[in-house]
Amino acid sequence: MTNPIRFTKMHGAGNDYIYINSMAYPLENPEELAIKLSALHTGIGSDGLVLIGSSEKADFSMRIFNADGSEAMMCGNASRCIGKYVYEAGLTNKETVTLETLSGIKILQLTVSNGTVTEVTVDMGTPEIIEPSIELKADGQTYTGTILSMGNPHLVIFVTNINDIDLPAIGPKLECHPLFPDRTNVEFVQVLKDDEVRMRVWERGSGITQACGTGACATAVAGVVCGKTQRKTKVIMDGGPLTIHWDKDNGKVYMTGGAVTVFEGTIEI
Amino acid sequence: MTNPIRFTKMHGAGNDYIYINSMAYPLENPEELAIKLSALHTGIGSDGLVLIGSSEKADFSMRIFNADGSEAMMCGNASRCIGKYVYEAGLTNKETVTLETLSGIKILQLTVSNGTVTEVTVDMGTPEIIEPSIELKADGQTYTGTILSMGNPHLVIFVTNINDIDLPAIGPKLECHPLFPDRTNVEFVQVLKDDEVRMRVWERGSGITQACGTGACATAVAGVVCGKTQRKTKVIMDGGPLTIHWDKDNGKVYMTGGAVTVFEGTIEI
Repeated sequence: MTNPIRFTKMHGAGNDYIYINSMAYPLENPEELAIKLSALHTGIGSDGLVLIGSSEKADFSMRIFNADGSEAMMCGNASRCIGKYVYEAGLTNKETVTLETLSGIKILQLTVSNGTVTEVTVDMGTPEIIEPSIELKADGQTYTGTILSMGNPHLVIFVTNINDIDLPAIGPKLECHPLFPDRTNVEFVQVLKDDEVRMRVWERGSGITQACGTGACATAVAGVVCGKTQRKTKVIMDGGPLTIHWDKDNGKVYMTGGAVTVFEGTIEI
Repeated sequence: MTNPIRFTKMHGAGNDYIYINSMAYPLENPEELAIKLSALHTGIGSDGLVLIGSSEKADFSMRIFNADGSEAMMCGNASRCIGKYVYEAGLTNKETVTLETLSGIKILQLTVSNGTVTEVTVDMGTPEIIEPSIELKADGQTYTGTILSMGNPHLVIFVTNINDIDLPAIGPKLECHPLFPDRTNVEFVQVLKDDEVRMRVWERGSGITQACGTGACATAVAGVVCGKTQRKTKVIMDGGPLTIHWDKDNGKVYMTGGAVTVFEGTIEI
């Protein structure tokens, strides 16, 4: 027996997921389904599957399954899409939405214009600076980086010209550098202005991706720590820009960016 | 202004296109739309866009636009999907459907079971053998191949073990070999039985793909020409198998295989 399911494909900074309202369509085996639906030619094609559910602690819950079926703790790009989804689908009329995730409750602040959510700001929590400036060797080169946590580990390296970086070659070496027994995400950053940087990311377990929300936050925080950028900075990634604000008063990092509904569909599973 | 369009994502042997009924949704600039809709993260993601239209010469017409916006002459995998689409959408109740393409009118023979099209046989026309056996040098190696046309050019090379072939390296060299001023599609083939072969394809202009209908036909024809296979042979590609029959009596090549509806959707363009 097949079972028709409605879904929405959305992306935030080029990070695309299949969004399913699991209150309307309760799903068994989301891990398996994420693999099947994310397949490029024979599935819908995506970076993974996001289930929007009810919550006892927040307005909604979010579960994210990567294209390989593993469950992710949290994803800033997906959170913004959920903000747009729940408001535009009429599941809420609040412009401040709380979201239960595996890494705690996240607060989404929606910017609404004529019933459309144009931007979402996500409270990404407080960074933990582990090493403000450290030298690492990889592939015979010496890099100076900042090590910090945004709930997940990041190594941020400022460079003069980002086009000189052979990310597919150096990314995996730094990800698995002996300094990081649990591996790390890696960001290479070129400062364009004191409030604008160009960043490319090597994600732990995924390799080069279009964008990484926590990576953009880590980049902006490292920029402040290293005296290179202001507290509010635009981080331009391959998939588009995000504006990151590391609040001086409460120490929290706020990420603001768009979310795009690509299409809606029905699939038999 | 946006304009909601209904589409169906289908695949034949892993070759996936976005199918739009252009009788219901007349589209301007299909080239541009193919690029936009085929994009992986920000579009629907596909190998291209197929428009199903009316025809004065046949039951329906087909236009195929690749993911790069270029228009293709014909695609066997897409033709099979069209056979399934028009029958199951109730656009026809015929089990033999004629289709106008840029390379002439194709005849589709549907196998129907309980209202579902399980297989489609496409008359792929008559092959033209250009060189039954020729030696070519590329990358310091000598290859023996068959050159033939299925409306488009093919170079078929039989090898002992297909896993020894570094297709990403040798594919582009053979595609652009001086023997082929208009470039060529390249098939590497390992004979498994006298009616079953394993084939991998390097498509002209596209590189490695999951499957190629004309490539499967060229493979089966070359197998007969070289005395390696019978007239009816199963060609197993990365995306799945196709059964090819080179008819002894009328000289035509018939391709039989499945077609899969992956999902249906609505997109604003």
